[in-house]
Amino acid sequence: MDRYTEYREVARQLGLDAVALVPGPNFARMLGKNFHVNERPLVVVVPVEGPPAAVVPNLELRSWDLVNFDGETFDWMDQTGYSGAFEALARHMTLRRIGVEGQVMRVFIHHALAAAWPGIEIIDAEREISLLRARKTEAEIAAMSEAIRISEAALAEVFEKVRVGLTEKEVERMLVQALYANGAEEQAFGPIVAAGENSARPHASARDDYAIRPGDALLFDFGAQWGGFCADITRTVFVGHASDEAREVYATVLAANEKGIELARPGATAHEIDDAVIGVLEASPFADRIRTKTGHGLGRAVHETPYIMRGNHQVLEPGMVFTDEPGLYHIGSFGVRIEDDVLITETGCRVLTAFPKTLTVL
Amino acid sequence: MDRYTEYREVARQLGLDAVALVPGPNFARMLGKNFHVNERPLVVVVPVEGPPAAVVPNLELRSWDLVNFDGETFDWMDQTGYSGAFEALARHMTLRRIGVEGQVMRVFIHHALAAAWPGIEIIDAEREISLLRARKTEAEIAAMSEAIRISEAALAEVFEKVRVGLTEKEVERMLVQALYANGAEEQAFGPIVAAGENSARPHASARDDYAIRPGDALLFDFGAQWGGFCADITRTVFVGHASDEAREVYATVLAANEKGIELARPGATAHEIDDAVIGVLEASPFADRIRTKTGHGLGRAVHETPYIMRGNHQVLEPGMVFTDEPGLYHIGSFGVRIEDDVLITETGCRVLTAFPKTLTVL
Repeated sequence: MDRYTEYREVARQLGLDAVALVPGPNFARMLGKNFHVNERPLVVVVPVEGPPAAVVPNLELRSWDLVNFDGETFDWMDQTGYSGAFEALARHMTLRRIGVEGQVMRVFIHHALAAAWPGIEIIDAEREISLLRARKTEAEIAAMSEAIRISEAALAEVFEKVRVGLTEKEVERMLVQALYANGAEEQAFGPIVAAGENSARPHASARDDYAIRPGDALLFDFGAQWGGFCADITRTVFVGHASDEAREVYATVLAANEKGIELARPGATAHEIDDAVIGVLEASPFADRIRTKTGHGLGRAVHETPYIMRGNHQVLEPGMVFTDEPGLYHIGSFGVRIEDDVLITETGCRVLTAFPKTLTVL
Repeated sequence: MDRYTEYREVARQLGLDAVALVPGPNFARMLGKNFHVNERPLVVVVPVEGPPAAVVPNLELRSWDLVNFDGETFDWMDQTGYSGAFEALARHMTLRRIGVEGQVMRVFIHHALAAAWPGIEIIDAEREISLLRARKTEAEIAAMSEAIRISEAALAEVFEKVRVGLTEKEVERMLVQALYANGAEEQAFGPIVAAGENSARPHASARDDYAIRPGDALLFDFGAQWGGFCADITRTVFVGHASDEAREVYATVLAANEKGIELARPGATAHEIDDAVIGVLEASPFADRIRTKTGHGLGRAVHETPYIMRGNHQVLEPGMVFTDEPGLYHIGSFGVRIEDDVLITETGCRVLTAFPKTLTVL
């Protein structure tokens, strides 16, 4: 077994001649190194049998050396364009059906493949290729735990500084600086810092014209990336004071979050977890504030398999990590979301996030 | 003329029924707001005539409200999937040929379009759609200038702290924190901080196991994003001392950089600029260290039209911004790159970057 074996097997099972990977989470897992995503195509083709081959921009060759690639590399220069390199690859390797990562590969590369192998069938094998990332190794869990540690240290620092009158943007900038100061390699995604009615938008953008007011909910959804792995954590606090309604909503969301942890174990399905978590919210007086499912897998990508939602009967297995992030969103008023990162173990689960969840008034 | 007019015109000129935009630089320009790129398709279709229409994830609807969209919106929930929304859009709008952004749209959305309109022809209209961004408005130049100001302030702070013994990663983290402390909304791209032989890799990754040594070249290539616009600046300095060879290489790269500024004016072609800039390097004793072209357009995307390279006979027009970033890369030894951001004006050019370029020994 070498680093291509599992990918060859995916191709074989789908009746494909090969899979083609581009820089991103699967590429990084397979080759141990990632590359910038830009206008220059970089593609690795792994056939069912025989050595892989790659198209690589000439100016990346000295970085490509670090990959210790096992197959033929066809490079190309900006001045001459990339179609010649794809044609050379097509002469080198006969392909009729190829699987690609539909969530990662962009259309111009799809078109370059179609032009190089006229009549080629290009299949979206995202699900099968990404499924190889679902069960994390111990080293991968350690990297994710470090990303979480960094994230939680940063949040604790920001909590010390939050006060009425700061804008969402100012708080966001504090958070981002604290992430890097604590050792983040990158951010797992653009952070959400949302106060007041903005907290009722599941994917709010921080505003520079809204200053935090007494009684506001303040929602943080963010994460560091470390060693190629993402953290994803949400905490909602209140500033100055919390209303009775806020406290009741918070307790409801926390109960739903805890229900997810209670049920997380090998053999449970994604559907069962979501059904129980959302069930807690549905049984509350706030059922009309439900907007989202329970969560998603977490790893090299911040959203990946398994998606924790009704209708997804995928069975959870040891080594899988998912977010448990129920929320209630009252449009025009406020929202609450509480998110932990949960690892399925051999016997149950381990919650990787450790930041306190008791109702906090800053 | 409304915000869709130019996009309709692109579709008309290419003989298309519509163009489809997804979150990214063109989408942000057209709608004044951007969205997270994730596994949930969000697509706006702008037909040659009649109102636009969109497919939007249900959980984004409260953010979508902020767009004040002019057409029909078909939303979808995670639990039921997105194919129904695409089918509803297809019943609403007949399409046979559609243009997409090949550098931005991912394959799974391409497949969703092809499934909703069987037999549809999907054309890569990246060049024509992105060309609408090439001539910047004064407000856009102001945003980019702010991104550059932030970037240069951050670099000045980092220069105060660089010393022998720090790792590339430590310096990178200082730089990133300084960017956010100075007001960056995001980073324009993952920064390059490369010392010693790593500086000879045009797209190096910072290492946490390499500490800066006396005499090292130290290359910074980075930029803030502000108001949706990117800065992109490179400076190469030396730590402790600079060898005679280093000084000679630096002077050569600086002369090439200055040649680009000298020639930048409306009516010049991208080819002419690159030919002259690279010509300076080719005439030097270091011609075998050339790895890259002169530069690329800069705006909402860090790499965009016009690409400043031989063979590209695109004529430069007032309002265009490009990077002038010649470099010399001696594999296994060191590299030097100097990068400015240059605005074409009515009569010549204005260099937006102001950071000193005299040889610096920290």
